[in-house]
Amino acid sequence: MKNKVNIDVPDAILEQLDDSVFESTNYGNPEIQRVGPKVRATTGESKVQSSIDDVLSNTLKDGMTISFHHHFREGDFVFNKVMRKIIDMGYQNLTLAPSSLTNVMNDIVIEAIKKGVVTNITSSGMRGTLGDAVSHGILKNPVIFRSHGARARAIESGEIKIDVAFLGVPNSDEMGNANGMNGDAAFGSLGYALIDAQYADKLVLITDTIMPYPNTPASIKQTQVDYVVKVDKVGDPDKIGSGATRFTKDPKELKIAKTVNDVIVNSKYFKNDFSFQTGSGGAALAVTRFLREAMVAQNIKASFALGGITKPTVDLLNEGLVNRVMDVQDFDKGAASSMKLSPNQQEIDASWYADPANKGAMVDKLDVAILSALEVDTNFNVNVMSGSDGVIRGAIGGHQDAATAKLTIISAPLVRGRIATIVPKVNTVITPGDSIDVVVTDVGIAINPKRTDLVEQLKQVPGLPIYSIEELQQKAEKIVGKPAPLKFTDRVVAVAEYRDGSVIDVIKEVAD
Amino acid sequence: MKNKVNIDVPDAILEQLDDSVFESTNYGNPEIQRVGPKVRATTGESKVQSSIDDVLSNTLKDGMTISFHHHFREGDFVFNKVMRKIIDMGYQNLTLAPSSLTNVMNDIVIEAIKKGVVTNITSSGMRGTLGDAVSHGILKNPVIFRSHGARARAIESGEIKIDVAFLGVPNSDEMGNANGMNGDAAFGSLGYALIDAQYADKLVLITDTIMPYPNTPASIKQTQVDYVVKVDKVGDPDKIGSGATRFTKDPKELKIAKTVNDVIVNSKYFKNDFSFQTGSGGAALAVTRFLREAMVAQNIKASFALGGITKPTVDLLNEGLVNRVMDVQDFDKGAASSMKLSPNQQEIDASWYADPANKGAMVDKLDVAILSALEVDTNFNVNVMSGSDGVIRGAIGGHQDAATAKLTIISAPLVRGRIATIVPKVNTVITPGDSIDVVVTDVGIAINPKRTDLVEQLKQVPGLPIYSIEELQQKAEKIVGKPAPLKFTDRVVAVAEYRDGSVIDVIKEVAD
Repeated sequence: MKNKVNIDVPDAILEQLDDSVFESTNYGNPEIQRVGPKVRATTGESKVQSSIDDVLSNTLKDGMTISFHHHFREGDFVFNKVMRKIIDMGYQNLTLAPSSLTNVMNDIVIEAIKKGVVTNITSSGMRGTLGDAVSHGILKNPVIFRSHGARARAIESGEIKIDVAFLGVPNSDEMGNANGMNGDAAFGSLGYALIDAQYADKLVLITDTIMPYPNTPASIKQTQVDYVVKVDKVGDPDKIGSGATRFTKDPKELKIAKTVNDVIVNSKYFKNDFSFQTGSGGAALAVTRFLREAMVAQNIKASFALGGITKPTVDLLNEGLVNRVMDVQDFDKGAASSMKLSPNQQEIDASWYADPANKGAMVDKLDVAILSALEVDTNFNVNVMSGSDGVIRGAIGGHQDAATAKLTIISAPLVRGRIATIVPKVNTVITPGDSIDVVVTDVGIAINPKRTDLVEQLKQVPGLPIYSIEELQQKAEKIVGKPAPLKFTDRVVAVAEYRDGSVIDVIKEVAD
Repeated sequence: MKNKVNIDVPDAILEQLDDSVFESTNYGNPEIQRVGPKVRATTGESKVQSSIDDVLSNTLKDGMTISFHHHFREGDFVFNKVMRKIIDMGYQNLTLAPSSLTNVMNDIVIEAIKKGVVTNITSSGMRGTLGDAVSHGILKNPVIFRSHGARARAIESGEIKIDVAFLGVPNSDEMGNANGMNGDAAFGSLGYALIDAQYADKLVLITDTIMPYPNTPASIKQTQVDYVVKVDKVGDPDKIGSGATRFTKDPKELKIAKTVNDVIVNSKYFKNDFSFQTGSGGAALAVTRFLREAMVAQNIKASFALGGITKPTVDLLNEGLVNRVMDVQDFDKGAASSMKLSPNQQEIDASWYADPANKGAMVDKLDVAILSALEVDTNFNVNVMSGSDGVIRGAIGGHQDAATAKLTIISAPLVRGRIATIVPKVNTVITPGDSIDVVVTDVGIAINPKRTDLVEQLKQVPGLPIYSIEELQQKAEKIVGKPAPLKFTDRVVAVAEYRDGSVIDVIKEVAD
């Protein structure tokens, strides 16, 4: 059955997942019955365990769904510790439902799949050897990719039922009061993990630092925690967040950042109390810096900055240019260490950040979002999931969620090496073109023609090189030529859901 | 059927409420399936309404359950505003399920009962004209009294299903991010209301102060809120919390406070990292002051102070004598205004405070609790609900919950005027004697004989006047004589549940 972005979704997949096809970016106002966890009452005994073995025996059974968070990113020691035990103890047929999977988790997930320990996966994304293995058909059932907001929605509605959550934290007291702000492996906001803490039947904290009772602030509360497992180290501080907050010197990145800034400051959204999400990466940091200059020059203050937070964004807060930082994760040490000091850097959970099925998420109030892309097609559809070789190598993250902003800007180079970014048809549709407003490349911008208001406003900006998206695509093709079409088998190895739970695309097994 | 404190609970009541009789103060480790609310998704439109009428039409139907909180205490304007409309719009057959009822709410509740608007009530307590009216049979169905922890438990398990919660807040933004810390009518912790916010299908905030978006800290979050109604004033700041933090000059209160302090500091619990809940009232404030002196003298620091918080307790925090204040409500302005300034004064919800059916409440970790009493009987059972005339005039509050502390001290005068406090049999059992350890009066103390350890320790304290509870009862009787027995009809007008949901006592209609 074809969906609204013209993807033919096999009926067998829709039946298997009990899903519908993507229809609209407008979620509307449905009424949803939420679920609740099953809670085993305790009465004050210390929950600290020195070994994970007993905890697993007490909580985990074959066929269950387990979850982890990815706030430690490439510095994560927890995932491997727990999965090692799970594999060695011979569990079978588990569903792995982390907030996302980072490269450091790849080897052990592949091992778990090969041994039948893990037979289902839902995640924001995957990369490297795991993405490659899944694209080559290693997993029996299709992976389900969900955005951060969609994961929260699915957990709240019971679509994802977490039996046991294993959440690494840089500190906890003996009862499970924990936060992400203190300790050697501090990462700041626990945003994605807070949903697991609220909805998992069993919650196991893994920490290297036991604090005096009661430990506050308690982002995760003792009322949610079953066990606290003490380990030597939960993470490598140097790999948790990039330390890189320096200004990019790459002229292409600088040019893109400057153009993104030109689009923002010349739009009707750039006024007092506007809000924005810039994301991470060299260009994003540069945008934040250009934006700062424009805000100072025009005496404009933002109501909030949202999303994955970086040091330059926290600097805007401290400078008084931003009233609140609404923080679902921190991308670098500066942002992570600032949260405990700044009451206006508010930790938010994934539902508050981006869930379409609650009574109002932060993204609903977002004016400007700057997002990246692996590919954008001439219908403005964006791919952040599969590479030019058709292999899974990305993550939805908050892409679909933040793209609901009033002004959504995709910032990307026209070509990367010999690969076009602007293409006739993206390999995988993750974010529908309907929610993309402007595409900014190093050679020029394209405005979604349905945004006639933006076309009118921006064509009056001197020196802003505006093209049609087809023209940008042709420019790219002129540079890198037409790639040979990719070859896939008919087998679906992954399903990308839109944030409402419908199927926006399927990823097929690569044939090579 | 007789329960463990020898109360004969009519079978008809047990059937009507689908309840069992009280068996034990030990809650054990049952597994409980929690419920979730039904949520109507929204997408960023302002929730501010200028009139409550439309909000009621959109949310409320005959027969539903509505809730309020009592954090504004006798300064509450919200309850009357909302109930006035509900009565005038002709609703019928509602269940009123507030966290508690204060005197300022009495007249309109009586009116609502008379007009059939309210036909069921569950509350922590009631006093004055309402208590009198209920004791004289005004309400068709029995009131159910629950402790603060039990209310949280009942909401989480679906025993209390809140259809619409009307929560007054001293500030909110247009989306419903709100706290109790700022604004003219600030009251500090929103502790009891946080459970309603999490579990009510519909949540209506009533506020007099709309803050810029996004408003943080957000004790109540936009993800939980359906409507924000703007009114002129939500409360009278002078009546919200008593300003009284002065040291009592009443020699009887001072004597009791000093004896309470002697019991504490001579018990094995008075050591570094101990924890305590002192409560409010003249004697409680005096206990806090004596305790401070002992802590300074012996260089002892507390891990946490719990409960309803007063200025003297916050002073201990600021002085470094207490590591954390775990704050479910603030009894005075000093405590309320301190919360926003002190990160170590942690707002906690009613579940975290005292719910027996979660993965660990603060009361489970409580060393010392000082509680009050209207009556204590020779089985150490405590009545905080009905007066010597048999009329309802109190509240369970956190009494049953905090009484699970390792050392629970009841502090009360031996007699009040011509009324004995220590009696052969309390008129209403609220907290079972099993959880009471020491009773302190102005003439002496009684130790629960099952606490042989405390008997051993405390009998070595010079000058501590230790009696049996029977001796104290006889001393009281000698002063005030034997009261004539109260007369009741057979009709049950209220049921007092223990914190686990079992029936600990019934209150009958007074015959006069």
